Amino acid sequence: MTARPVPALRWCELAWLGGERVEEGVLIEIDGDRIASVEPGVSSPPAGVARVDGLTLPGLANAHSHAFQRALRGRAQRGAGSFWAWRERMYAVAARLEPRDHFELARACFAEMALAGVTLVGEFHYLHHERDGRPYPEPNAMGEALARAAAQVGIRMTLLDACYLHGGIGKPPDEVQRRFSDRSAAAWAERASGLRAGEVLRHGAAIHSVRAVDPDSAREVAEFAAAAALPLHAHVSEQPDENEACRDAYGCTPVELLERAGALGGRFTAVHATHLTSGDIELLGGAGCTCCLCPTTERDLADGIGPARALRDAGAELALGSDSQAVIDPLEEARALELDERLASGVRGRHAPADLMRAATAGGYRSLGWPEGGRIEPGALADLVTVGLDSARLAGTEPDTALDSVVFAGAAPDVRHVTVGGRAVVRGGVHASLGPPAAMLRSALARLGP
Amino acid sequence: MTARPVPALRWCELAWLGGERVEEGVLIEIDGDRIASVEPGVSSPPAGVARVDGLTLPGLANAHSHAFQRALRGRAQRGAGSFWAWRERMYAVAARLEPRDHFELARACFAEMALAGVTLVGEFHYLHHERDGRPYPEPNAMGEALARAAAQVGIRMTLLDACYLHGGIGKPPDEVQRRFSDRSAAAWAERASGLRAGEVLRHGAAIHSVRAVDPDSAREVAEFAAAAALPLHAHVSEQPDENEACRDAYGCTPVELLERAGALGGRFTAVHATHLTSGDIELLGGAGCTCCLCPTTERDLADGIGPARALRDAGAELALGSDSQAVIDPLEEARALELDERLASGVRGRHAPADLMRAATAGGYRSLGWPEGGRIEPGALADLVTVGLDSARLAGTEPDTALDSVVFAGAAPDVRHVTVGGRAVVRGGVHASLGPPAAMLRSALARLGP
Repeated sequence: MTARPVPALRWCELAWLGGERVEEGVLIEIDGDRIASVEPGVSSPPAGVARVDGLTLPGLANAHSHAFQRALRGRAQRGAGSFWAWRERMYAVAARLEPRDHFELARACFAEMALAGVTLVGEFHYLHHERDGRPYPEPNAMGEALARAAAQVGIRMTLLDACYLHGGIGKPPDEVQRRFSDRSAAAWAERASGLRAGEVLRHGAAIHSVRAVDPDSAREVAEFAAAAALPLHAHVSEQPDENEACRDAYGCTPVELLERAGALGGRFTAVHATHLTSGDIELLGGAGCTCCLCPTTERDLADGIGPARALRDAGAELALGSDSQAVIDPLEEARALELDERLASGVRGRHAPADLMRAATAGGYRSLGWPEGGRIEPGALADLVTVGLDSARLAGTEPDTALDSVVFAGAAPDVRHVTVGGRAVVRGGVHASLGPPAAMLRSALARLGP
Repeated sequence: MTARPVPALRWCELAWLGGERVEEGVLIEIDGDRIASVEPGVSSPPAGVARVDGLTLPGLANAHSHAFQRALRGRAQRGAGSFWAWRERMYAVAARLEPRDHFELARACFAEMALAGVTLVGEFHYLHHERDGRPYPEPNAMGEALARAAAQVGIRMTLLDACYLHGGIGKPPDEVQRRFSDRSAAAWAERASGLRAGEVLRHGAAIHSVRAVDPDSAREVAEFAAAAALPLHAHVSEQPDENEACRDAYGCTPVELLERAGALGGRFTAVHATHLTSGDIELLGGAGCTCCLCPTTERDLADGIGPARALRDAGAELALGSDSQAVIDPLEEARALELDERLASGVRGRHAPADLMRAATAGGYRSLGWPEGGRIEPGALADLVTVGLDSARLAGTEPDTALDSVVFAGAAPDVRHVTVGGRAVVRGGVHASLGPPAAMLRSALARLGP
């Protein structure tokens, strides 16, 4: 962490403490990397205490990221096609990356995230090996490149190391997918065991999908995660084709398969969860799983609209992810969850602004194995984001509806200050130690060629 | 117009001239309010010619706006509800406005639009009268307030004066709707005839909807528009309830009713066009109408996803509008048209980036009665917008896919320069003559109270 420590006391004009409305005049005391005390209703900053204008939120968690896919933004829109055609273009980038490229691209992408208010990223990582499929001399060279990138940017990361064995149900990995495969769940577990956590880095496990991991291997990954009490993520039912293939091969849905493999539970996150049966929804909700929707990616990839409200009603937690990086803007992700359900249902208010903000904060922190974060309360991680209310988008915001305004009309450029573990990562819209992310992104993309 | 004239010659790094791809090194000559010549492929700026970095587009048309609804942004999200519950909150604002408030709010809203690249706005205006329903001493006081607001901001306006007679099929106007009603189509026509066009102001007619205008009155409005060769707009099938009420009362769809009233044709624009039958689509397409979708409002109001691709296939033109001002960002509007159809269809590429950009430019100019604008070619109106490519959102944009990048990843804050009729309205992201729109918005909203 290169970022600077922030003052121990700050007075926030407005802060969201988890309720339906925001609080005015909130004095927040930080001790080390934790919040020591929170006092709302303080009418003005006490002498010598820094004043923070705008709306202060808990740090935002991006619970599902593939950093390298930032290279595709704007470059994979031409022509008609399906998710699967897009995947071919994504593979062309994946085939080219070496650890140094991956580090540069991820660092730039995480810097873009930090400036958008992301304080914790869940990097769903499956680009493990050399181009020909052999392990790197340092077998976790790729994962460690990602961890270094997040550390340099100064945000927390959960590295979700994904087991990826097959190129489809019953199919060997293709030329690109060889990079993803450890060949067996046991070999995956051995490599993944070599990863070491740090102050701002934790680990998690992932079953890439029921396409890429057979049921026995899924069980091995789930057991590995359970033994180490790690978060466990899986791509689930993003596309109807995946459901059909699963039913043809195993006679069940992907959620049913994962349930039989012992994957479901409070540490499990189903990513996308778009095309679910009512039985799937009951299973995920009943087990207290998290469902991480990625609405801007689901729009971009024509995935469909997931049943987020039904999942919440059934007992699931919600989280949000930028996934393909078509958009990096947690506020847009949060409102898209509600807006897309409005399109599907014809009804407004499927999720209250506070529900959406919980998904963007505490829901993501829980999903990524940091349950002590994503909330502004004594003892919580001192991860804070302040959204300025002085742009044309947000002009006229009133305290009573400030949360609604920020969720429905705020955008990444409105993020002014970002604090992670008590240290300032972004001040006044500028990264505290790195240059502008745009320059980093251009340089990282230039390494990859056209 | 208070804006300054711009240099007669500019060299644009990239410009979109209407094709599937952008051109590099485009020399654009402006003579008065028109484009005199366009020369692509000029490798560097000739001596003394201003260099314009970024992607230069034709001016963006916002073909459907209710400026005063900017007052609702962020303030009408709480609680579940329908379009009709939202309308109650909108009426509470409509009931309070006087011409001076309306001017202040519209000027601030149009300034926000100008900074987002809007060079032409179609203001669908129905807030005609005093609170008790009597005409103002100057019967067009409200419409003229809107026209002055656009003129001060320096953007073009088509004032679409809407006939609004009934509070629903067979119902008198309610207490708020009295402000909207001229009591008869003849009285509407007499008042609307008093409006005068100007250099940057044109007029159009509107049938508010089949709820608010009976078939005979709709015919009168259509005849008035046809006689004066004015654009004619109508809200059409935004909500299923409207279709049901129309079918119950008249035994036909709103589009069929408007067709029988003689409204359809090349000067007609159906706004929203969300819930259409296949017969409606054939009628609108066959008559060469424009359909103005307002995707971010349709998301916000839970309207649904209109059949934009089917309309285009049937022969309709497309245009885009910000409508309720939940969002003011023509680029977001353009991509939302495609992204929401992806959600509905499961397929990408329903509209190519160039199709989306045509809807945002030439499609809107045509809809609003300025067919000589919305394109970069000799003789066209010198309305130009330059999008900078140096933000984190757009970093890495390449010439070959620059249009795709800007449509799918650009945003209002990326707009750097806006020229209307050869005059600079926005330079370097700042309005050339007015203060920041945020300050204007705050002041205008403060006039209205909470």
